[in-house]
Amino acid sequence: MAQPTIKDVAKLAGVSISTVSRVMNDSKPVSPEARRKVLDAINKLDFKPNELARSLVMKKSNLIGVIVEDIGIEYMDQLIRGVEEIGHLYKYDIILSSTYGDDNALENAIEFLSTKQVEGIVVISENISAEVLVKLRDNKTPFILLDKFHDFKKLNTVKIDYLNEQYKLIEYLNSLGHENIAYVTKKDHDYLSDIKIEGYKKFMEKKNLEPIIIEARGNSSDDGYNIGEEVISQVKSKNLSAISFINDQVAVGFIAYCYDNGIKVPDDFSVVGFGDSEISRVYRPKLTTVSIPNYDIGAICIRALIKRIRGEEDILENNWILDAQLISRDSTKSR
Amino acid sequence: MAQPTIKDVAKLAGVSISTVSRVMNDSKPVSPEARRKVLDAINKLDFKPNELARSLVMKKSNLIGVIVEDIGIEYMDQLIRGVEEIGHLYKYDIILSSTYGDDNALENAIEFLSTKQVEGIVVISENISAEVLVKLRDNKTPFILLDKFHDFKKLNTVKIDYLNEQYKLIEYLNSLGHENIAYVTKKDHDYLSDIKIEGYKKFMEKKNLEPIIIEARGNSSDDGYNIGEEVISQVKSKNLSAISFINDQVAVGFIAYCYDNGIKVPDDFSVVGFGDSEISRVYRPKLTTVSIPNYDIGAICIRALIKRIRGEEDILENNWILDAQLISRDSTKSR
Repeated sequence: MAQPTIKDVAKLAGVSISTVSRVMNDSKPVSPEARRKVLDAINKLDFKPNELARSLVMKKSNLIGVIVEDIGIEYMDQLIRGVEEIGHLYKYDIILSSTYGDDNALENAIEFLSTKQVEGIVVISENISAEVLVKLRDNKTPFILLDKFHDFKKLNTVKIDYLNEQYKLIEYLNSLGHENIAYVTKKDHDYLSDIKIEGYKKFMEKKNLEPIIIEARGNSSDDGYNIGEEVISQVKSKNLSAISFINDQVAVGFIAYCYDNGIKVPDDFSVVGFGDSEISRVYRPKLTTVSIPNYDIGAICIRALIKRIRGEEDILENNWILDAQLISRDSTKSR
Repeated sequence: MAQPTIKDVAKLAGVSISTVSRVMNDSKPVSPEARRKVLDAINKLDFKPNELARSLVMKKSNLIGVIVEDIGIEYMDQLIRGVEEIGHLYKYDIILSSTYGDDNALENAIEFLSTKQVEGIVVISENISAEVLVKLRDNKTPFILLDKFHDFKKLNTVKIDYLNEQYKLIEYLNSLGHENIAYVTKKDHDYLSDIKIEGYKKFMEKKNLEPIIIEARGNSSDDGYNIGEEVISQVKSKNLSAISFINDQVAVGFIAYCYDNGIKVPDDFSVVGFGDSEISRVYRPKLTTVSIPNYDIGAICIRALIKRIRGEEDILENNWILDAQLISRDSTKSR
C-alpha cells in the first residue's frame, strides 16, 4: 500500500485538506469535533506528515547546521555533544558538516545549509576569512562562531580567556622556581595560537625573562616528537628548565621523544600541555595542563543561538567567558 | 530587496513558471531559446532555488543520514571521514545524528531522518536491537549497518574479520613463546566483544591452553587502569606472560597502572591492544596492536549505499571483508 497522503486523511475524516493542515500546524482555530476526526484519521492511516512539505508551510525546519573543521580534533566531540544534547532539549536537530580546513568547503557548507533552510548555523573553526564571514552575514540566518579568535567587532562568542589562561600557566611554572621557560607553538599561526603566545610573552616580559619561541610543524603528537631534537638543543644552549606546549598532543609527543632518548621528565625539565585531553591523564608522567570546559561552551552557544532564532533576549551581548582550570600533575616539579 | 522567487524569474524571462521549473529540473524538453532566457533571468536575479521545494518536486534530497553511537569513539572520525568525503564526490551531503547508545534515540533518529527525506541511511553502531532493525526495514529507505556483528541474515556490511584478526594476534603472542595468555574484555558484552573473545578462545582451545577471561567495567583507559589490580593478581596466580586487551585504550590504561606500581611492560609480561589508535603510537612502550582500515570501511559503505539508491549493482551481495594489519611494537617481547 502506498504511503497515505494528506488527501487520504481529509477523505477519511470527512473534512477539507485545509482543515487537516490547520490541525497539523495548529495554525488557525478548528472545531473540537473536526480536530478529533482528523486525529483519528491520522492514527488509523498511520499518516506521517512529510516534514519537508510542512517546513515549507511552517517556515520552520527545526534544524540547526553545525560546521566543523574536523570532527577528529580531540576536543570537538565534547563541544558537539554540548550543542547536540542541549539542541535536542529544545527540539532542534543538528546537521553536521565538516570542512577539513578548506575555505571553499566552508563557503559551500554555508550555502548548502541555507538551502536546507536551517534556522541557525554554528561555525566551529579556528580560522575563518573575512570573505566567508561576509557570506555568513549576507545569508541572514542567525549564526554563532565558536572556538575562534576573530578581530571582527560585534561578533560575540563563548570561549575561555586563552591569553590569561596561558599567562597563569607560565606564572605557575614560575612559582615552581622556573625562569628559563620556552614556548612551543606551530608554524602556521592562527588567532588561537597567537593569543596563547601573547599570554606567554606577557608573563615573561613582566618578569624581564627572555621569551624563547619554538615552532613545531603542526599540532599533532608526531609534530611534538619531530621537534624533539630542536627543543633539546635549546634546552642545552638556553639552560631551559620548563617548556610549555601549544596543546597536550604536542607535549606528549615530545615526552615520547625524551623517553626514547633517555631524557627524564620532570627530572631534567618540566613540561606542560594545554587542553586536558584524555592522553594527558593516561600518559606517564601525567601531564600538567589546562582544562577547557568544551561541553559547556557548546551548550551555552546553542542556547544563545536558539534564543536568537526565537527572537528572545540575546545572551551573547558580550563575549561569554568561561573559566578554565589549571591541573597540576606529574610532568612538572619545583626547581 | 526580498529574495527573488520562481515567479520573478518567469516574469523576467517572459515564460511560464512551469517552463522555469523544467529548465531547473531538466525534466522535460524546453526550446533552446526559452532555456537561454530562463538561465539569463536566473543569473540576473541571482535566483537561488529553494532546495526544499525542489526536493519535493524532484523526490531527491541529495542527503544521506548517518546515525552514530557517539562521535567521541576513537575510530569514529576516520569512518565518518570516509563516508563524508566519498559521499561528497557523489554530490551527497551528510546529516549526522548521535544516539549516545540509547535505543530510543536510535529509533527517533531513523524516524527523524526519514521525515527529512534522506535518500539513504548509514547506521554505525555496535549494538542494534531487532525492534530497531524492523523499523529500519519498514522505513523503506536504503540503509547499511556498519561496525556491527548482527546475526540477522541478508544484512551485509563492510568490516574486518574480527574473529580471525583476534585469533592471529593470539597466534602471534604464542609465536613469541607465550602460552599463559589472558584476554581482557568488558562487562557488558555485545556482538563485537563476543566475537573477539571467540577468536581468542579458538586459538587457546586449538593449542589446548586454558582460556582466562577477565572483565573490565567498560572500554576506556580508566577502566583499564581500574582493572589493573585484578589482572596483576591473575598474572601471579596463573603465571601469565601475556595479556590481550579489548582495545588500545584499556591496554594503555592498564600499562599506566603497571607504571604506577613499578611493574615493567614488556619485561614482566607482554601487552597487546586492538585498533591502532593514536595513543598506541605515542604511548611508551609503544603498543603492539591491530590496525583497522576505518576510512576505507566508511568509503566502501557509502559507495555501496549510493549504488543502492541509484538502483545500480549491489556491491554488498556478500559481506565485504577488509584486511586488518598486525602491528608489532614495543609492548611485546619473546619469552
